[in-house]
Amino acid sequence: MKDMAPDYIPTLDDVIAAHERIKPHIHRTPVLTSSYFNQLTGAELFFKCENFQKAGAFKVRGACNAVFGLTDEQAARGVATHSSGNHALSLSYAAGRRGIPCHVVMPRTAPQAKKDAVIGYGGQITECEPSTTSREAVFAEVQARTGAEFVHPYNDPRVVAGQGTCSRELNEQVEGLDAVIAPVGGGGMISGTCLTLSNIAPHVEIYAAEPEQADDAYRSFKAGHIIADDAPDTVADGLKVPLKDLTWHFVRNHVTDILTASEDEIVDAMKLTWARMKIVMEPSCAVPLATILKNPEVFRGKRVGVIVTGGNVDLDKLPWFKN
Amino acid sequence: MKDMAPDYIPTLDDVIAAHERIKPHIHRTPVLTSSYFNQLTGAELFFKCENFQKAGAFKVRGACNAVFGLTDEQAARGVATHSSGNHALSLSYAAGRRGIPCHVVMPRTAPQAKKDAVIGYGGQITECEPSTTSREAVFAEVQARTGAEFVHPYNDPRVVAGQGTCSRELNEQVEGLDAVIAPVGGGGMISGTCLTLSNIAPHVEIYAAEPEQADDAYRSFKAGHIIADDAPDTVADGLKVPLKDLTWHFVRNHVTDILTASEDEIVDAMKLTWARMKIVMEPSCAVPLATILKNPEVFRGKRVGVIVTGGNVDLDKLPWFKN
Repeated sequence: MKDMAPDYIPTLDDVIAAHERIKPHIHRTPVLTSSYFNQLTGAELFFKCENFQKAGAFKVRGACNAVFGLTDEQAARGVATHSSGNHALSLSYAAGRRGIPCHVVMPRTAPQAKKDAVIGYGGQITECEPSTTSREAVFAEVQARTGAEFVHPYNDPRVVAGQGTCSRELNEQVEGLDAVIAPVGGGGMISGTCLTLSNIAPHVEIYAAEPEQADDAYRSFKAGHIIADDAPDTVADGLKVPLKDLTWHFVRNHVTDILTASEDEIVDAMKLTWARMKIVMEPSCAVPLATILKNPEVFRGKRVGVIVTGGNVDLDKLPWFKN
Repeated sequence: MKDMAPDYIPTLDDVIAAHERIKPHIHRTPVLTSSYFNQLTGAELFFKCENFQKAGAFKVRGACNAVFGLTDEQAARGVATHSSGNHALSLSYAAGRRGIPCHVVMPRTAPQAKKDAVIGYGGQITECEPSTTSREAVFAEVQARTGAEFVHPYNDPRVVAGQGTCSRELNEQVEGLDAVIAPVGGGGMISGTCLTLSNIAPHVEIYAAEPEQADDAYRSFKAGHIIADDAPDTVADGLKVPLKDLTWHFVRNHVTDILTASEDEIVDAMKLTWARMKIVMEPSCAVPLATILKNPEVFRGKRVGVIVTGGNVDLDKLPWFKN
């Protein structure tokens, strides 16, 4: 089976333009270090804390780039997406900053806390049934009615270029990086990382980290073509979606390797990070550290950037409480 | 009843000397801001994140100052304290950095996690029964046997001078502060804050924040003499101890006001900070924000430094889980 070629592959110029465009709307997030984790791993780890980002996740970079790149005419009709996660929050935040509508299609079964968060950022929710058929039908109806611009959570050059600004900052903040590791779900962050670093620091190794229970990117990488899973289940709920043509392009061409971790390893790494670094981060963000702890020989002696992708976690349902 | 006068009251010179002495052993912790909390309170809040400090709390400042100020002869005999909290961790850390023994007397009933943490930092635990009589007897025996230098958790000029380095950094990091707020338990941090700011920025108002259920400092402040409670109970477990002569000196002379918050207000502020700022902090650290949310008129329009004192919390026993 031949994979589709993407329509447009963003360039470093797109990343630089994105960075200028979104700077007023995002944080230049800090990089934290931990002597505890350095001792434990034998590597020098530099945690790029996108959990401190606006709307609590890196996705605001891509969302802002898409929203603020629209013409006034496009913008007047608003933006639309289907997501119940950080992309919905981020697009709502970005649209709010520009003062335009943001339409979000969400399953009616999504947790009320997620709906409230989207509404809190000014998004307008249209509910669908929890099925792909219903979601697509409802989304088509919303788009037809509003003329809103669709901003895909990751398979969109504007979004990938926006996410690429994160490793551009990281490369400025940390001298002499040997490697960078980020989680891979749909592949927006890892693609932005590949795009930027392959241009400005091509010697830096790029690792993607994935849950064993949603390892479609790992299997795609080994097979040489996209393998999409049907409804994988993992605590790292941001990483359940499959690669698409644009993100597969970057993974295939620029990723050094993909490493995986079990559910227990992810939860242990998450809890250990909260306990030792005193930061709140999502299960998805713990996957890179879990794979570093599992494969210390890959990282020992290296200066490694670790992208902490977000901090939007339900504090009433922490995964180390088994009940 | 007349309060005892302290033997020695530390000066700004002591703070400056402490800062030079401890710099190689502590973090200059970052200051975080939150547009969410600024909107909510109408103030500009600057969170000084001592939860990111070495050993997870500001107390490492005072502990390092005491340990690294010892002569070689004193140091050879080690240091000793009685504490089951952050002071025990911090003194163990400081002693470990100097390569000398640290003796900690702890009730045998203290949680194993706290004992493990002290041992993890190299402290040597001697257990006592959970009573003041037993603690004092065991501590006297340890001190007689070892000749170790006693470092009190707060009623010690070396400790107060060390804690004073925190607001010295804060005043460098944030221009034009109008007020600073910190929790008050025994009063080590608030005293260091008073000591430093009354010298270098005497126009800055200094607020102390205390749990309603352990409001001995509040009642002392109103009464004009120390009132010590017998075993107060609060979720803010770092704030149960009473003021002593040295810390009372600073509270009486330099604190603008003491504000209190209920248990529910403290837990709500704690959870809200985790959710919005993505940082892990102790219940004690949430007391200042709880009092700001309760008394917005005191802080509105002001630039307020908020000292986040520590992040050592039991992740298996979070106070918003009622079971």
